[in-house]
Formats: sequence, C-alpha cells, structure tokens
Amino acid sequence: MKWEENVRKVVPYTPGEQPNRSGVIKLNTNESPYPPAPGVAAAIERLVPDRLRLYPAFPEQTALAAELAGYYHVGTDQIFIGVGSDDVLSMAFMTFFNGDRPILFPDITYSFYDVWAEVYGIPYETKALDAEFRIRTQDYVTPNGGIVFPNPNAPTGVLMGLAQVEEIVAANRDVVVIVDEAYIDFGGISAIPLLDKYDNLLVVQTFSKSRSMAGMRIGYALGSPQLIKYLNDVKYSVNSYTLNYPTLELGVEAVRDKAYFEACCGRIMQTRTRAEEELAKRGFTFPKSYGNFIFASHKSMPAKEIFERLKENDIYVRWWNKERIDNYLRITIGTDEQMETLYAALDQICGG
Amino acid sequence: MKWEENVRKVVPYTPGEQPNRSGVIKLNTNESPYPPAPGVAAAIERLVPDRLRLYPAFPEQTALAAELAGYYHVGTDQIFIGVGSDDVLSMAFMTFFNGDRPILFPDITYSFYDVWAEVYGIPYETKALDAEFRIRTQDYVTPNGGIVFPNPNAPTGVLMGLAQVEEIVAANRDVVVIVDEAYIDFGGISAIPLLDKYDNLLVVQTFSKSRSMAGMRIGYALGSPQLIKYLNDVKYSVNSYTLNYPTLELGVEAVRDKAYFEACCGRIMQTRTRAEEELAKRGFTFPKSYGNFIFASHKSMPAKEIFERLKENDIYVRWWNKERIDNYLRITIGTDEQMETLYAALDQICGG
Repeated sequence: MKWEENVRKVVPYTPGEQPNRSGVIKLNTNESPYPPAPGVAAAIERLVPDRLRLYPAFPEQTALAAELAGYYHVGTDQIFIGVGSDDVLSMAFMTFFNGDRPILFPDITYSFYDVWAEVYGIPYETKALDAEFRIRTQDYVTPNGGIVFPNPNAPTGVLMGLAQVEEIVAANRDVVVIVDEAYIDFGGISAIPLLDKYDNLLVVQTFSKSRSMAGMRIGYALGSPQLIKYLNDVKYSVNSYTLNYPTLELGVEAVRDKAYFEACCGRIMQTRTRAEEELAKRGFTFPKSYGNFIFASHKSMPAKEIFERLKENDIYVRWWNKERIDNYLRITIGTDEQMETLYAALDQICGG
Repeated sequence: MKWEENVRKVVPYTPGEQPNRSGVIKLNTNESPYPPAPGVAAAIERLVPDRLRLYPAFPEQTALAAELAGYYHVGTDQIFIGVGSDDVLSMAFMTFFNGDRPILFPDITYSFYDVWAEVYGIPYETKALDAEFRIRTQDYVTPNGGIVFPNPNAPTGVLMGLAQVEEIVAANRDVVVIVDEAYIDFGGISAIPLLDKYDNLLVVQTFSKSRSMAGMRIGYALGSPQLIKYLNDVKYSVNSYTLNYPTLELGVEAVRDKAYFEACCGRIMQTRTRAEEELAKRGFTFPKSYGNFIFASHKSMPAKEIFERLKENDIYVRWWNKERIDNYLRITIGTDEQMETLYAALDQICGG
C-alpha cells in the first residue's frame, strides 16, 4: 500500500510471557510475590466512581509527587511521574537524547534501550561489559550524546558502586546521564544523593518491583528542577494526563507505608540469599545479584533446555536467545514456597 | 548548561483549568456531568489488590479490545487502545506521519495537533475553515503527508457529513487519514462504516466524554488490521503496558452498558437543545453543535470579558486568545441545574 511509505517501521520490544493459566509459577518478569501495601487495598475502597468523569488533575497529581518528594527529601519540582518506568525512560530518551552524537549503553542491558533509540531515531553505541558483566568506566569517558545504564544492571543483577556512578556522571557534565534504578531497593545504593551535585543526572525508579504494583504502571524520575522541567514540557506535548485517578490515589499509599515496603524488600533479599545457596548446590553459577532475580548459568545443561523443561513444569523463568547471555536464565525471586517448587523441579531436570 | 544543547525543546499544550475548589461549575473541559455506568462502580468493588503486583496483560487487555470490537462490529485486530485519545492520536502521528510532505489539518481545530507535529518534527500546513467554520474538501485534495481532523470539529462543534468525510478519505488513498471522533456520540455519524472500504482510514474515539470516564484515561482507534498492526508496533516500542489493571477492568463495564450510555448522550443532547434557545435569547450566536458543548459569541460583549466575569462567579468555560476565535466561548453542556445557574449568571453579566 502506498500509505505504508510514510509509516515509522520498528521492531518492538518483547516483554516476558504472561501465561493465562492458574497454577503457573511466574518467575519471569521480576514482579513482586507480595501484595501491595495494605493502604492500597483501603484506597481502592475509597475510590469514588463519580470522580471518574473528571480529568485526573490537581490536587491528586501533586499529592503523589509530593509524597515521593517527601520520601526522597527532594523538591516536588524534582519529581517526574509516568506510566511505569518505561514511560519515564521513553520520555527521557525523547527529551534528552536529541543530539547527533551517539548515546552510550552497555551491550548487555535492559533490552528496551535500543528499541527506544530506534523508534526515536537516536544514534547509539553499545559498550561491552567485562567478562564479569561489569561496566568499564573508561568506555564512558568519550564524546557522546548521553548515557543510560541500569544499576543494578538488568538482566545480570550486577551492582555498580556509587563512586563509579559518580565518576561516570562527573566525566559527562555536558550530556544527560540516566541511571535506571528499577532494582535499586534490593540491596543497592541509590544515586539520589548525587542529585545535589549534578544537574545532568536523572535517576529513574519504579513501583513495579519493590512496591508490588506492576499492574498499576507507575514510574518516576528524580533530577534537577531544570531536567524535570524539560521532561514535563515534552510529556505535556504528548499527553496532558497520563496517570489516571485510581493510579494517583493508590500510588500515594504505596509510598506512605515505609515499614511494609522495607519488610517486603527484606523478605525478598532473604529468599535471594537462600536461592544463591540452593542454586549453587545444583551446579549453577551467577554474579552476585542486587536485583529481585538471579542470572544463572548451569555447569552442564544449556540454559535453553532448562528454560523449556521448567516451562513444561509450569515454572516460567526468562531466557534470551542473545549473544553472550544465551546460556543464562533470569530467575525472579518468588516466595519461599515457590522457590522450593523451583528447586525440586531443578533436581528433576538437571540434578544427578 | 552544555547538556541543554541536546534537549528537545517544545511549547507544550495547555489543557483547560482544573480548579481545585468545591462549588465550582466546571463547563470548561467537556467532561460529562453524569457518572460512569453503574457497572463501573461495581467493577471497582471487584478489584483484587493482590492482582496489582502483576503486569496488566492478557486476558484483561484482550477483553477490553474484544468488548469494543463487539460493540462496533469489527475485528479485535482492528482495535488499538491507549491512555486517552491523546495517547492514541500522539502514537498515530508518530506512526503514520513519518514522511517528508506536510500533513494537513484545519486552522481552527484541536490545539494539540500542531503540538504533536512539533514534538515529533512532522511538517504541517493548516487549511483555513470557511466563514461558517466548515472544512473545504478541495483544501485536502492536494499532495500531502497525511490528514487529521476532528469530526465534529473542536472547538466549534461543526459536523461534517459522512459523504464529505468519504470524499476526503477516497481522495487520499496514498496517505493515512485520521478522523478524530472524540465528540461523535452527541448526534454525529461516525466514519466507522467506511473502514470496510478504506484501509488508510483511522477513526479515533474516547471514553472521556460520552462515556463519563475522563478520569480513567481511555481512548481507542479503529482501523484496518494493517494500520492497527503498525500502530501497535510503535506502541510496543515505547511502553509495553500502558493501560493498568483497574483501567482494563472498568473500561469493559463502560462499553457493556449501552442503554446507560445512550441515555446519558440523550440527556446531554436535550440540554444542548435547551441551551441553544437560552443562549440565543441572551444575544449569543453559534454554529449548530454536534458536541457536548456550544461555541458561542455574544452580539455585544467581548468573549474574554464574559469568560472572566463568569469565572468570578465560579463558572468556568473555555476561551482562547487566538486569531479568528477570540470572540468565542466554548461552553460545555452540564446538567440542567448547572446550565440554569449559567443562564442566571449571563443575565447578570450581559443581559439587559
């Protein structure tokens, strides 16, 4: 068709499977195994149907930003909120990576980065992680159009120390550096304190993992007021109202309950420690993970085979048919009970 | 700052005010004065907090598309759903208007069109409406990169007949033509039946007006399976999950209750008929409106003055400081009671 000539043609990102059957153990998309904070359930009950007829606006939108600002001890003008951290990152790519020089990110990383670069026509270069999946600082001390990396990295779980993050941000004051902290709450140290020193730093986080709200789609960014203003200008040039009324109401409650949040993260980290032992016992090796997942390779059985056999047992983990990582499985940390089922299945599949 | 050189700089769209006070009569953003369908309230009560920890996915996403497909008698592969029709239109601009030729839209129209064109770097030309705010077919029979117009037009409320819509679509088979039907349910005739004949037609509608769910942010497009596939590819290159779990659940109920929907639209049209009489009595003229609003000009008092005086009386209507329309007010059709308060205020302000 002639009209197809004007179409932006892209190869979209492929998310992890969402099997539509009960009884499945879902360790493939890094969701939390625990429900959201009890206050969220109470907020659902308080929702007023008639309020849905009005556009979501002030004061709700301000309330969620204010809650996050209070939590992280920054100004409300330093908070940007989006429809999941994917929306936030996508907007940030569109806003800040609008130059001619290539942006830089690791070769093994969140597989949405190159998709956003392609859809927005952003030139990019990937930099190879070292043999232990670590980012090499010197790779990012070179002229570029911007930098983005997850910390901890995905899907490896490898954490970069705050000193190295600062080194990269400081060496790139003339571009925007995005630190994607989707998994920071599971033992990592956030770059948020660096915001006071660097107006070119954007830190992105999400409600989807540590706050048990993947189904609500809330992500946010923290940055200098100037960065956030540019981001909001682009956002308001795309869609005035992206977070709906229930999202704004429930989101506040998820931030407010710090004790519950810390308890959930603590439980997941405990289960992760146990998983390290159990997986090691069964012949797996993996980098030390600071995420709610473990990126593991078996000593003798190919990852693809284990992936498929687990699926036959209704246990979903994640596997990528990609160079350098095609012998790894990314296993989300579930409940202790789910993990026991996983270990038993692994005994059947690759034990001996 | 040096990093600002790479920033995409834009002038964002300005939505209507959302006054944060009770007692205000809000006739400025074309929201419905009636609550969403009763089934929506029931669906809120059925929401399961634990479900929020999982990404929104199948079967919910399929269910809403299937409900809409059933309602409009098209295939599920002919439905695209987004975060309000702004999200749908923005995605459609990005997807279909990716050529070098200018896209075309009216000079007086939804004021987001030029904002999207700017943010995505799409060349555009506006075509002047005639003196009665009508689109002239011949303006759109010229080489172009795509066409978009609302029908009924915003903010005028002027309806284009289906034959004229078809004429424009048929004359532009080599580009995509977007008909933005945000206000079609208030007496207009939709272009949906033309989808069988034209694979280059995209019809966009919304839950924000006739379905009383502006606060939920749901919009959708209907088109040929090819168009919808391209649109989804771009959407999945930006954000895998944009509609959250509550949105998908509540959205289905809003579509399902056809009787309630038709009753609400009917009441709004009745109030509109009454408003035409009352406004005419008070010295206003206006084109015949097919939206849930009236675009009115007073015979002697400037629109800006009436706008400001109404606001002092806690009645918000919309006024634009823009060429050709700066002597008009766009007045949303509220409840009969709200409209009575408006008429009384107008008697004070410009009566005599």
